[in-house]
Amino acid sequence: MDQISAARFFGGMQYVFRHASEATGTPMTFAAFVPPHAAEETLPVVYFLAGLTCTEENFTVKAGAQRVATELGLILIAPDTSPRGEGVPDDPDGAYDFGLGAGFYLNATALPWARHYRMEDYILQDLPRAVASALPADMTRQSIMGHSMGGHGALTLSLRNPGRFRATSAFAPIVAPSLCAWGEKALGGYLGPDRSAWRGHDAVALIEDGAKLADILVDQGLADKFLADQLKPELLEAACEAAGIPLTLRRQDGYDHSYYFIASFIEDHLRWHAARLTQI
Amino acid sequence: MDQISAARFFGGMQYVFRHASEATGTPMTFAAFVPPHAAEETLPVVYFLAGLTCTEENFTVKAGAQRVATELGLILIAPDTSPRGEGVPDDPDGAYDFGLGAGFYLNATALPWARHYRMEDYILQDLPRAVASALPADMTRQSIMGHSMGGHGALTLSLRNPGRFRATSAFAPIVAPSLCAWGEKALGGYLGPDRSAWRGHDAVALIEDGAKLADILVDQGLADKFLADQLKPELLEAACEAAGIPLTLRRQDGYDHSYYFIASFIEDHLRWHAARLTQI
Repeated sequence: MDQISAARFFGGMQYVFRHASEATGTPMTFAAFVPPHAAEETLPVVYFLAGLTCTEENFTVKAGAQRVATELGLILIAPDTSPRGEGVPDDPDGAYDFGLGAGFYLNATALPWARHYRMEDYILQDLPRAVASALPADMTRQSIMGHSMGGHGALTLSLRNPGRFRATSAFAPIVAPSLCAWGEKALGGYLGPDRSAWRGHDAVALIEDGAKLADILVDQGLADKFLADQLKPELLEAACEAAGIPLTLRRQDGYDHSYYFIASFIEDHLRWHAARLTQI
Repeated sequence: MDQISAARFFGGMQYVFRHASEATGTPMTFAAFVPPHAAEETLPVVYFLAGLTCTEENFTVKAGAQRVATELGLILIAPDTSPRGEGVPDDPDGAYDFGLGAGFYLNATALPWARHYRMEDYILQDLPRAVASALPADMTRQSIMGHSMGGHGALTLSLRNPGRFRATSAFAPIVAPSLCAWGEKALGGYLGPDRSAWRGHDAVALIEDGAKLADILVDQGLADKFLADQLKPELLEAACEAAGIPLTLRRQDGYDHSYYFIASFIEDHLRWHAARLTQI
């Protein structure tokens, strides 16, 4: 694993690493913040999955999470949002919502995407292996959060892997990709036209089909221009209510879809995660 | 004045504005954060001057200052670092340390720079006029801080204008541009070869020549790769000691020149400013 950069930040260290991923067949880049800690101490790990067009950098430089992570003693891991590099196909029109920067955190089954676009395996296997090998991480205490497409990723990966993540939260997540344009394009492209295959990668459908979580925290800005057409938090609200999953859905007046919104509420999310990561 | 963007952030509003500057003869862009406040209330104004290559965006998205500004009730103003646009000359080699993104917060007197590169007049005249006209600002309570080239700007503009700014601080400032390569290129280019003209735009020389401030706060990372050759905080330390100016110079172990360094200590700077801005 190559260390691309390292900088002191809030008393800890902000790293960027690159490593070969077996899942994607490409080099993958991720950012890792390690707060100050005692020698031999291991710390819980919080994954943040970013949204369309992002890399590992957006959350790392814009969300202001490291201050709180230092206070709470949390390692923060921010992966890239798709495979990249030689031989990795992109959206034929270069659109922002498919292909590079838009992996949707699933394993593609349709060609030509199936070869490299295996972000679910990357996030669940290669990335934790790299984290465990390089950082003072307690891999028995992991949690996951994300934004927009990454909120979809956090919800679906947690729902698909019961017990894997001790806390799950999202900012402005795509909760039902089968029922919005971003998701229909992504699931149709990566998984093919058979919509029954989509249900396993749609948080609302997963809950309807019986997947459970102990609880979920979601923040959603009410000035988010994607709210009505793409995000539709009311569908998650209805599914959680029907399934008896405690959902804390906070509708935040005046906030948009940007990292200004994330930064304003990241502290609440990290405290929510810390409370669940430090339970015995 | 055109409002380029507006977003809710920590309960306040983050704006970007563009306006015509008489000083530079160009449109100028600046970012402004206005914390939540009562109707009719006016708030102190803190200017942050950024370093080489930056725009109004770097501080705004990376420094994490708005959380603290909301707590303390401070307006934050982040201007661009040079004039830009049609007819504005750049470094003939396109270097990062002169011309576009490198205005050094002075009024150029040498050609071809003298026409547009008038950042001192912009910061002291056009920008405050725009702030006063558009925002709930108490213009009797202003303070200034900056980073690197912007630390030079904060120190020199405050030293050159006694009483104008109620607090002055800097992150990794260029304290003696006459004695480092960045500064020699900039002052030589913008002001011409006569070094006596440089002293009025060199913080250490200004202090040696009798300029005063009530006190100064400076943070400097000890892993900053520009420390020894460009920044030389020991020269400011010696000048302040000789002049009887209280300087709080904090050498921060392990920190580099990046916004990770700034974000780690911005809260201390804003509290320092707030204490001096809210004195009667």
